[in-house]
Amino acid sequence: MVGETVITVAGNLTADPELRYTQNGLPVVNFTIASTPRNFDRASNEWKDGEALFLRASVWREFAEHVAGSLTKGMRVIAQGRLRQRTYQDRDGNNRTAIELEVDEIGPSLRYATAQVTRAARQDAGGAGQADQWAAAQPGGDDGAWAPGGGFGDDTPF
Amino acid sequence: MVGETVITVAGNLTADPELRYTQNGLPVVNFTIASTPRNFDRASNEWKDGEALFLRASVWREFAEHVAGSLTKGMRVIAQGRLRQRTYQDRDGNNRTAIELEVDEIGPSLRYATAQVTRAARQDAGGAGQADQWAAAQPGGDDGAWAPGGGFGDDTPF
Amino acid sequence: MVGETVITVAGNLTADPELRYTQNGLPVVNFTIASTPRNFDRASNEWKDGEALFLRASVWREFAEHVAGSLTKGMRVIAQGRLRQRTYQDRDGNNRTAIELEVDEIGPSLRYATAQVTRAARQDAGGAGQADQWAAAQPGGDDGAWAPGGGFGDDTPF
Amino acid sequence: MVGETVITVAGNLTADPELRYTQNGLPVVNFTIASTPRNFDRASNEWKDGEALFLRASVWREFAEHVAGSLTKGMRVIAQGRLRQRTYQDRDGNNRTAIELEVDEIGPSLRYATAQVTRAARQDAGGAGQADQWAAAQPGGDDGAWAPGGGFGDDTPF
Repeated sequence: MVGETVITVAGNLTADPELRYTQNGLPVVNFTIASTPRNFDRASNEWKDGEALFLRASVWREFAEHVAGSLTKGMRVIAQGRLRQRTYQDRDGNNRTAIELEVDEIGPSLRYATAQVTRAARQDAGGAGQADQWAAAQPGGDDGAWAPGGGFGDDTPF
Repeated sequence: MVGETVITVAGNLTADPELRYTQNGLPVVNFTIASTPRNFDRASNEWKDGEALFLRASVWREFAEHVAGSLTKGMRVIAQGRLRQRTYQDRDGNNRTAIELEVDEIGPSLRYATAQVTRAARQDAGGAGQADQWAAAQPGGDDGAWAPGGGFGDDTPF
Repeated sequence: MVGETVITVAGNLTADPELRYTQNGLPVVNFTIASTPRNFDRASNEWKDGEALFLRASVWREFAEHVAGSLTKGMRVIAQGRLRQRTYQDRDGNNRTAIELEVDEIGPSLRYATAQVTRAARQDAGGAGQADQWAAAQPGGDDGAWAPGGGFGDDTPF
Repeated sequence: MVGETVITVAGNLTADPELRYTQNGLPVVNFTIASTPRNFDRASNEWKDGEALFLRASVWREFAEHVAGSLTKGMRVIAQGRLRQRTYQDRDGNNRTAIELEVDEIGPSLRYATAQVTRAARQDAGGAGQADQWAAAQPGGDDGAWAPGGGFGDDTPF
């Protein structure tokens, strides 16, 4: 897609991610990220919570299984994706709209945590769709290096 | 700071993060993120690498130690922070400018990896500065819950 | 606020902005931005519309009057702001949530248009709140230069 | 391109935009955006400037001509685009890198200004490349409506 609205959100999972499989066997995981800003109140000289933003998010394919196997309720994450609007009917038959996040990248925030990272087994190259475009988009993804882009080394100009 | 330029980048570490301590004992870690886009070439019907963007990044305080203890060369990360411009003199005495990323949030991307996450021991509350503002900015940070925001539960409206 | 979720959206106004005044005489303008992505369909070899994202937005103070005096239905804009979640009761007494954009910067997109820009008369310095923080945040804002930051000149290193 | 690093910057033009034409007659405009953050100093109880970020930017095609015809030195703008890294040799033959912004959307900020907007004459449909993709990406772009997306009306659900 060209012209989608991209957003990055940092916040905490309100519950464990829910992993499901579509009728075609495609994994998808859903969860909600709660992002709570704070304001410094000069009168009381302390920080006060603002109203939280709750954003429903989804992840597809092998990526979904990685999320379901790594993240749990309460963890702080950083996620980037595209905002999507979905129209649905509520119980009374009224049309409602919901805004959701189609996640492109997500990871556990290291701000208050550490992580032991394990490279996933190489994903099936036979698939189609955007997830595979992304897989393909990674340099070095096929050569057995630790991770995509693993070819960058000490000879970079930094 | 008000009005800083915020950016999110996804890419791979070009080397292991370098952890140092300032004269005051403050931890700081530096590393470079390489982000490589790809373009679909309709003539050859395949994806081709674009030119990589190399962004030098820094993280401070306990957060720096979490990064140094979790991330290694080649890993894919997602990071959000503020772009900073720094002026320096090169070996010939010429003024040069460099653009760097002051990281606010970073984590290992779960796109091609899984992670086992461990909550860090509670950080020293005696510090000052932005890192602590952020720590303070998290709801539930003091109550022994797994992580900031751990108080959000199944009663959320999603 | 620290830790708010910042987003940039490009799209078209679905209607003329609606300018109102609060009981305290504070101007506020509301409008909706429709952002429509497109996908290239290789089968038909043409671009097809995706589902539009509709984002309700608000702008405050003198800034609101500038928007109301400059933008009209159908115009393409680029806007940056903070996502806010609002809870309300619908006609049936059910709690609903809506996500809205609190705009920090907006302008007419020059992609398909030109603009004749006029600097606004200097705003009242006696106000309070974030809008004024931003006003104050501009270098050179008081010195009669064309605009904030007007002090940057040909001696910049670029 | 998939996987590019997208950024939004608000700031002031350091000089009038420079419009040029490539050997093929393609318009391109270059300019620098200076973005200056500010920090509230509690000791002195006033706002103080941080170090400015200077970002070199470029715009192509008809869009470039709109920019050159609308923006001048000192104006505040909001711009979104993709960060690009360019390698070049300086006068001493050393390799240098520069980070630049390839602009996708830009407009004059209405924060301290008003604008009188004029829809550009319909652009040549015979071109190629991303700019035209974007043109094509706008609903209603061909039907003589005021602007892309002009078809959205009062029947939107907001």
